[in-house]
Amino acid sequence: MWCRGLLVGRFQPFHLGHLHAVRYALERVEELCILVGSADKSHQLDNPFTAGERVYMVKAALEEAGIDCRRVLIIPLPDSPAHSLWVASVKATVPKFDVVFSNDPLTRRLFQEEGFTVLDIPFYERPTFSATEVRRRMLKGEPWEELVPKAVAKIICEVGGLERLKQLNQQK
Amino acid sequence: MWCRGLLVGRFQPFHLGHLHAVRYALERVEELCILVGSADKSHQLDNPFTAGERVYMVKAALEEAGIDCRRVLIIPLPDSPAHSLWVASVKATVPKFDVVFSNDPLTRRLFQEEGFTVLDIPFYERPTFSATEVRRRMLKGEPWEELVPKAVAKIICEVGGLERLKQLNQQK
Amino acid sequence: MWCRGLLVGRFQPFHLGHLHAVRYALERVEELCILVGSADKSHQLDNPFTAGERVYMVKAALEEAGIDCRRVLIIPLPDSPAHSLWVASVKATVPKFDVVFSNDPLTRRLFQEEGFTVLDIPFYERPTFSATEVRRRMLKGEPWEELVPKAVAKIICEVGGLERLKQLNQQK
Amino acid sequence: MWCRGLLVGRFQPFHLGHLHAVRYALERVEELCILVGSADKSHQLDNPFTAGERVYMVKAALEEAGIDCRRVLIIPLPDSPAHSLWVASVKATVPKFDVVFSNDPLTRRLFQEEGFTVLDIPFYERPTFSATEVRRRMLKGEPWEELVPKAVAKIICEVGGLERLKQLNQQK
Amino acid sequence: MWCRGLLVGRFQPFHLGHLHAVRYALERVEELCILVGSADKSHQLDNPFTAGERVYMVKAALEEAGIDCRRVLIIPLPDSPAHSLWVASVKATVPKFDVVFSNDPLTRRLFQEEGFTVLDIPFYERPTFSATEVRRRMLKGEPWEELVPKAVAKIICEVGGLERLKQLNQQK
Amino acid sequence: MWCRGLLVGRFQPFHLGHLHAVRYALERVEELCILVGSADKSHQLDNPFTAGERVYMVKAALEEAGIDCRRVLIIPLPDSPAHSLWVASVKATVPKFDVVFSNDPLTRRLFQEEGFTVLDIPFYERPTFSATEVRRRMLKGEPWEELVPKAVAKIICEVGGLERLKQLNQQK
Repeated sequence: MWCRGLLVGRFQPFHLGHLHAVRYALERVEELCILVGSADKSHQLDNPFTAGERVYMVKAALEEAGIDCRRVLIIPLPDSPAHSLWVASVKATVPKFDVVFSNDPLTRRLFQEEGFTVLDIPFYERPTFSATEVRRRMLKGEPWEELVPKAVAKIICEVGGLERLKQLNQQK
Repeated sequence: MWCRGLLVGRFQPFHLGHLHAVRYALERVEELCILVGSADKSHQLDNPFTAGERVYMVKAALEEAGIDCRRVLIIPLPDSPAHSLWVASVKATVPKFDVVFSNDPLTRRLFQEEGFTVLDIPFYERPTFSATEVRRRMLKGEPWEELVPKAVAKIICEVGGLERLKQLNQQK
Repeated sequence: MWCRGLLVGRFQPFHLGHLHAVRYALERVEELCILVGSADKSHQLDNPFTAGERVYMVKAALEEAGIDCRRVLIIPLPDSPAHSLWVASVKATVPKFDVVFSNDPLTRRLFQEEGFTVLDIPFYERPTFSATEVRRRMLKGEPWEELVPKAVAKIICEVGGLERLKQLNQQK
Repeated sequence: MWCRGLLVGRFQPFHLGHLHAVRYALERVEELCILVGSADKSHQLDNPFTAGERVYMVKAALEEAGIDCRRVLIIPLPDSPAHSLWVASVKATVPKFDVVFSNDPLTRRLFQEEGFTVLDIPFYERPTFSATEVRRRMLKGEPWEELVPKAVAKIICEVGGLERLKQLNQQK
Repeated sequence: MWCRGLLVGRFQPFHLGHLHAVRYALERVEELCILVGSADKSHQLDNPFTAGERVYMVKAALEEAGIDCRRVLIIPLPDSPAHSLWVASVKATVPKFDVVFSNDPLTRRLFQEEGFTVLDIPFYERPTFSATEVRRRMLKGEPWEELVPKAVAKIICEVGGLERLKQLNQQK
Repeated sequence: MWCRGLLVGRFQPFHLGHLHAVRYALERVEELCILVGSADKSHQLDNPFTAGERVYMVKAALEEAGIDCRRVLIIPLPDSPAHSLWVASVKATVPKFDVVFSNDPLTRRLFQEEGFTVLDIPFYERPTFSATEVRRRMLKGEPWEELVPKAVAKIICEVGGLERLKQLNQQK
């Protein structure tokens, strides 16, 4: 059991695979810091949601799933001006952590070069449960709600997420 | 009762007056977003602690005080490149909120010009309970621990906060 | 009749379709603010001209067309570090406006989410009159001058725009 | 007679001394570019007004004074990340100019080191007609309206400038 | 013989063609400033090495080749926020120079527009000796060491460059 | 004997105390990296010289003093957007180092918190040999040349440093 873990993601949007990852991590750490990365990105086809909307999604999904939010911190972080500064930026923005959960090659490399232990997260029914697939279905008019927690689907409606994504897709 | 409130502060460090303000706000809103401002500032005489250390202080102090952390979000936010962009930056980084708690004139002005309701927080035994006073006492070797929650004093020790502040004070 | 309108474009370069749009807008507003977007971009294949060169093109084209420049402001604005800050940046940089003219989906979305009225501009003989087509012709050695006001063609010559674009195109 | 001149100022706010400077410059150049500097600054005691508000002040003051706005460009420009980049930033943002009007030592030095001709502007009844004096009077409740064009006083009222300045002054 | 020359490159990594270019330039200038461009970029497929690693490569390669390092300055420089500011940024960061060596169209254009003399460097056995080819071979497991100075191959091993590149390549 | 050392300074300008520090460090390391900090600052009363001018001063002073420049790297580095990112920025910009030489409290603290060994440099006839004193004398018309290496005095003349400083001092 680690003291505090860091789970890194962009959560565009937060889906059931992410929820699975949070559960996986919470079995291995006492407190989990969920880093909402690329917090400065929104209104892009690959990053449609604001950091605030994603923080809200994570919180609501965890509550709905009955996860104890007192063991969790949800921290948004903008991208760094340089990859070489990113780990320093994370370390300055979240409480001290012992272990990192990530499957992203760049994230893994950057933390490993700074001496951190980085753990894989077993993928949950990939490639279906991926944010790319959720966004693809949203654009194609296919059923996407089944890939995300109910609370997330509700928030996406609330903020007009479907319309936003479709409008951004008109960009030539 | 408001749905979601925003409490803005730098928390350098989080003291008993801040705790009082959190309690005051939680009586008026269902969910409170505590914004840890100037998240990019640290290792300065006026801003000695990193955002991560301050997030940790707020969390620990709230837990110690028996406040239900499930009703709270703790969100760090760097300063904006321009005052005119700050409210937009807040809105993009935290979930939607209905009311702002702040006594800071600039914060109040910026939110008011954007049409937000901004509420005063009754000051708790000012000027004793202020972060400026805590830092002053730390530098002078006067008793500062009584101004902050026990959990905060412990974290300041843990991160070598006293030594950091004193070393920064040697800057000519 | 609106009081003040905002017309958003990059004007790389300003062509006859843009001139048509300015005329269309000036029939609907008393004063028009022409926002020269991506002012920080230049010397790229998609953004060959500096903001200063583009401001100069707009001014010269309007004068040549007999448009009363006293009803017009030409304001350059750099891109924002985040889409979520862009409308705030516009609002801080130009005088207060009542209506936005734009066909760009992202621009429309961002202003609509902030509650602005956004009007379409009827396209003028698309796809011929587009900046992409002007740049394509410049690179291919096809007649491009007929797509832009005479004053703009003259400025492009003056600043060595054709040579610049061709040299940038050598980038592997 | 120069072809195009550059007049540099912050215009916090635009006062009668500035108007005098514009007239002085327009006697020496065919076209004048008025650079509204520090466009990113606002809501500070020394920089209370946004760039948009200041652009609006300049335009309205010139119209009121019967100056032909067709000979004038009003261009806002944010501060540079480094003094050594500022002249390059100006050159990229405004049309080509032959001469600079400024009494500010740093502005003069930076342009002179890049080989520009920089002309002094005879001061108009200093120290009364200075932006510092206008802001001082606004804070003290002394008559400040007589120092600025009527149109500027009206705009300051319109945007709540007096209240803003007073509120910012409460900052401890 | 020029007094001081500027040689511009990214050196991702420094290869034998670069060494040839340095020798070529040193025959034409008394002192050579080697600008390590895009110093802020690293941990990307096209820019795998940090500025520090690249400065180290250049220094070690020159020493190994028996070049007198007293005639050379190795200066890292981050990319500019705008192409229009880049030459000003170079001029502010390196000692005054008389001539620029570069085959890159954008670099050549930017310096030429500012009035600098820019000289071509005869390419050394292109396309074999190019950084793109070195990185391609590293990823494909083909012999890449023969394209770079021995000292550079050693540094790439030392910093785990091969593993870093392969790990970055897993990014989907 | 350490392998590579880092000597941190702003060198505004480089004086005889700095030369003494370089000699002191070179007795303890095989290779010395001289970091020219605040490379983005110039044309300020406290930071009158550009990074390029300061790099030139250091190089010329070392050559004049008969120091073997093959053992030295001179690397300019801009200030970081946050103190918490500065050590990461240094590590990414210079080759790997084992020890840091600095008397500056903030520099010392930041490197110590990242686990570096930081060594004091015995001050050389303070307070006379300080950059603050050199700049003070330059402004007062007192003899400052005796505080800097002859080569530095020559460069300051060459770039018009005395006039620049005096002109900046006219800023109200």
